[in-house]
Amino acid sequence: MDNTENEVPDIVVGRLPIYLRALSTMQADGKLYTSSHELAEWLGISSAQIRKDLSHFGEFGKQGTGYSVAGLYEELRQILHLDREWPLIVVGSGNIGSAVASYSGFAQRGFRVVALFDNDPAKVGARVGNFIVRDNAEIESFVAESHVLHAMIAVPAQHAQQVADLLVDCGIRGILNYAPINLNVPSTVHVEYIDPVLHLQKMTYYLE
Amino acid sequence: MDNTENEVPDIVVGRLPIYLRALSTMQADGKLYTSSHELAEWLGISSAQIRKDLSHFGEFGKQGTGYSVAGLYEELRQILHLDREWPLIVVGSGNIGSAVASYSGFAQRGFRVVALFDNDPAKVGARVGNFIVRDNAEIESFVAESHVLHAMIAVPAQHAQQVADLLVDCGIRGILNYAPINLNVPSTVHVEYIDPVLHLQKMTYYLE
Repeated sequence: MDNTENEVPDIVVGRLPIYLRALSTMQADGKLYTSSHELAEWLGISSAQIRKDLSHFGEFGKQGTGYSVAGLYEELRQILHLDREWPLIVVGSGNIGSAVASYSGFAQRGFRVVALFDNDPAKVGARVGNFIVRDNAEIESFVAESHVLHAMIAVPAQHAQQVADLLVDCGIRGILNYAPINLNVPSTVHVEYIDPVLHLQKMTYYLE
Repeated sequence: MDNTENEVPDIVVGRLPIYLRALSTMQADGKLYTSSHELAEWLGISSAQIRKDLSHFGEFGKQGTGYSVAGLYEELRQILHLDREWPLIVVGSGNIGSAVASYSGFAQRGFRVVALFDNDPAKVGARVGNFIVRDNAEIESFVAESHVLHAMIAVPAQHAQQVADLLVDCGIRGILNYAPINLNVPSTVHVEYIDPVLHLQKMTYYLE
């Protein structure tokens, strides 16, 4: 099989971290084995879907015993390139940027925030958690020196595209965007979005 | 067609708020008309998909002129039940909960945070932005009196299920969960998840 034939659908890739998170909880609970049926029950995803998703990457389960929790966890970590720690920068030191920079949930899941930037002279130099806020003007040199590939954007919507352009120029390859707009970036850069309002608006659809 | 036949797939419902967000930006820019092709270019979703999604709800576009920006915006607002303001509560007044409670992006998009709760006696009574943190023990009476149907959970992972159980018992119908675990709730309650690490882990898959 060549690489193109073998390309895994984006939606499948997006579910792997969800499986990893469940396996991590199972591991913490001391569970040794699990099954696609058990994962299905935990996650509200059908067991057939889970088996199909995992089959893109090889044969993990054993007839009768199911999946080794630690084994599948380790395989997924490798597939997602989480067998190392990825540094991250945060641009925007407002409420959201400050909360994200200080979020304790990155450790042990593969990520570490290494710098927090802002373009507001009143904020540059201030302490936010463990960070001293740096000037956006330093982003380029910082990214070059520290080989950071991922950034989170937490600036007002009207500045987000400009920040994204700067990050792309610096060589950032993945952007997690908290600003409520769609970003235009080259196809070599992967953007993911977090906008709580989109989730809330989806929920109100289901209410009468 | 009966109601079951006519049920709109969840994934389609999830895209409607994205269309609404784009239309809102177009409206602010003074744009009168748009097309599935233009929306496709903005959003990175194919124009055929956009037309198919919208066709679940009726005939919106006109041959030649395309969609009226204001008209489609208003239709989607109605479909999503956003022709009113929905109150929200936030449980957990740590970094994430405090940032979310103070997020200015809810106004004009249909939502308003009306109360912030915590179970930590050291935090109850403290001021966070415009809120005085209330005790979790008050959630039940508050929800009953103020007819709130939506809540955001921003507590540590190990307490999130317990908070979800309490919210469900109080009559909450939609939960936006910031804690990095899957919640078990009855099928009548809609849960959406925000976990930045899931997005970051998806991005690292695409890096060598």
